[in-house]
Amino acid sequence: MAKLNNNYLKLKAGYLFPEIGRRVKSFSDSNPEDSEKIIRCGIGDVTEPLPLAARDAMKSAVDELGSHDTFRGYGPEQGYEFLRCAIANGDYRTNNISVDDDEIFVSDGSKCDTGNILDIFGNNNRIAITDPVYPVYVDTNVMAGNTGEANDDGTYSGIHYMPCNPLNSFVPEIPDEPVDLIYLCYPNNPTGATATKEQLEHWVSYAKEHGSIILYDAAYQAFIQDPEIPKSIYEIDGARDCAIEFRSFSKNGGFTGVRCAFTVVPKELMAETDSGDRKPLHPLWSRRQSTKFNSVSYPVQRAAEALYNDEGKNQINNLITHYMSNAEKLRGACSDIGLSVYGGKNAPYVWVACPENIDSWGMFDKMLNEANVVITPGSGFGKAGEGFFRISAFNSDENVTKVCDRLKSIL
Amino acid sequence: MAKLNNNYLKLKAGYLFPEIGRRVKSFSDSNPEDSEKIIRCGIGDVTEPLPLAARDAMKSAVDELGSHDTFRGYGPEQGYEFLRCAIANGDYRTNNISVDDDEIFVSDGSKCDTGNILDIFGNNNRIAITDPVYPVYVDTNVMAGNTGEANDDGTYSGIHYMPCNPLNSFVPEIPDEPVDLIYLCYPNNPTGATATKEQLEHWVSYAKEHGSIILYDAAYQAFIQDPEIPKSIYEIDGARDCAIEFRSFSKNGGFTGVRCAFTVVPKELMAETDSGDRKPLHPLWSRRQSTKFNSVSYPVQRAAEALYNDEGKNQINNLITHYMSNAEKLRGACSDIGLSVYGGKNAPYVWVACPENIDSWGMFDKMLNEANVVITPGSGFGKAGEGFFRISAFNSDENVTKVCDRLKSIL
Repeated sequence: MAKLNNNYLKLKAGYLFPEIGRRVKSFSDSNPEDSEKIIRCGIGDVTEPLPLAARDAMKSAVDELGSHDTFRGYGPEQGYEFLRCAIANGDYRTNNISVDDDEIFVSDGSKCDTGNILDIFGNNNRIAITDPVYPVYVDTNVMAGNTGEANDDGTYSGIHYMPCNPLNSFVPEIPDEPVDLIYLCYPNNPTGATATKEQLEHWVSYAKEHGSIILYDAAYQAFIQDPEIPKSIYEIDGARDCAIEFRSFSKNGGFTGVRCAFTVVPKELMAETDSGDRKPLHPLWSRRQSTKFNSVSYPVQRAAEALYNDEGKNQINNLITHYMSNAEKLRGACSDIGLSVYGGKNAPYVWVACPENIDSWGMFDKMLNEANVVITPGSGFGKAGEGFFRISAFNSDENVTKVCDRLKSIL
Repeated sequence: MAKLNNNYLKLKAGYLFPEIGRRVKSFSDSNPEDSEKIIRCGIGDVTEPLPLAARDAMKSAVDELGSHDTFRGYGPEQGYEFLRCAIANGDYRTNNISVDDDEIFVSDGSKCDTGNILDIFGNNNRIAITDPVYPVYVDTNVMAGNTGEANDDGTYSGIHYMPCNPLNSFVPEIPDEPVDLIYLCYPNNPTGATATKEQLEHWVSYAKEHGSIILYDAAYQAFIQDPEIPKSIYEIDGARDCAIEFRSFSKNGGFTGVRCAFTVVPKELMAETDSGDRKPLHPLWSRRQSTKFNSVSYPVQRAAEALYNDEGKNQINNLITHYMSNAEKLRGACSDIGLSVYGGKNAPYVWVACPENIDSWGMFDKMLNEANVVITPGSGFGKAGEGFFRISAFNSDENVTKVCDRLKSIL
């Protein structure tokens, strides 16, 4: 008889967003007159139109597919050279970071890639994950059999959790036990924290010493305003020996519905075989993508390429300016009413300590019931998130102004 | 130290298409005057323009993304309801096959899905695969650790191979040992064979008796001309209890570069847990897609939807007619010169027995050197493919006429 993957049975129900949905629905049903006023600052989804440069490029690529002479069928599974080159140049070589075109693997999302990357690793790695954390890192390790059962507090045995809190500025300490795969995400989802060059140097140095690999999620790098904060792990000497970087067009180019991202796997990067040899990971990921993926829609790849021309870059800048102006307003409103505010300076997420005597879900209910604003309870991202809530700056200027006013009126 | 997935080291080098590429390049380098004459009938990639209905739908969806009022960010990970419903209606319910909208999972390719589906299965299943076979089924099982090492003849220990040949009309016998996951692909890639209703009934009956699951790849169903041949495994009574079906817009809608496909997971379908319970697979695949996928680009989903309106259906019919007319010409030319021809009647692949005393690669070289035509050697799809070659009907009318003339001139 066919057997299923028992690891899936360890997964906790996708608790956070369904529970948010349930509470919002219950509120709307009981208060139909208020339901139209609800403003959603929960999920980190963009709200502003797709940049014109991307739209124009996509439409001309569709036209190309309409003619015999310019029709394209299967493209290279790792992405078209025109896009890999635009990325390696525009995001790395222009900033004096050495990345070859063929170290760029175009994909349909960083969520997908941070999950799929586990395909090329053994199931005997020790996994280090921050708390709070983007839940996909945890769940994909559960699915892959890299953890034990769930504990009562929502953690999984077999994962090394690294608490992040105001004391460490939401950048974890170096673990006191050896770990092999280390998930770092900066600017951070959900806390909006960033890591300094010195902090990342410590991590790279640890990883090189222990043969660990850093899985560096830089999906929010475009929001970094402070020139001292690294946008790429490869700004750190030695990172090419120990880090894979994930980036996305979702948040800078507004591509959450268009789907394009990429992963950088340096050719120097090695991992150990069962027999103790060290082998490069680049050919494994390339083989994985060739076998289980067929790259991204051609018009989408042309749209992503267009984000690197002058028009595209300007349009991205305008989007970033818009969202970061929202973040500043939200930070200001929270500060004005005496709350401790983190993030939101170099990230589109504002991470706020709940008022005294209110926990994360209590704050969620208060915001929903009294301000008709949906936020995300920090505890949904892990137990170290308890006592905090996240406000997303992905919204219209008008809505953010309303959210700020309502925050002030209820606290 | 980080450990890699040792199963990847068992993979044979992706031998077939790189070797074809090497031989074509070597021929072109030595015969520059002939290299422009080369016609490629190897890889199964479409050549005709994308249907206008799909292009128009895609471009208006791009325009929608350009306006605040109609902008869409993240869509449902399983696909938009408009597309799931169009598929379930257009491909199934219209044909009196019961499939619910939420049993349709939209994806970026059948190749991806036939690989990714292994995520939800345990690694203690006995795998049955036809020989010859689409190599992705084999390689993804190797990667997932479902096989032993490669043998000298290119097979892997731990896989139950089911030979397909003229004696069984390229539809395998029911195995004489129990198997849990059974890959069937009809119309078949590479042989172009189809399975009758009676043959599929035997398989469904076997699967139900043994608790096996049939992974039914129907990517080429649109090419079926004979109304007696099932287009879906769900035309067979009981198949909802034992089969997952994979379909794609790649070959009917010319979407190989646009990327859209879908997988049907009936809610009745069960597999066994370690403790011997039977649990449904539908929630596992749904969770897998929610966690490791973000669905397909919105404009691409609109393009796929448009293939189900009258204009789209007409345009698909024209494409199928075009490619099947090519297949008929290729079949005729091979028959005329006395070769035994299979496939090509309900599939875009013509599968031909090599002339006496020429093996698959010998025929490849002869075709390349003497006719300047690239075909695929049958042995590249498995040892039972030795002595055959595949000609793809995906080409222009003009090229196919030339291929027929050249075939006749060299044999």
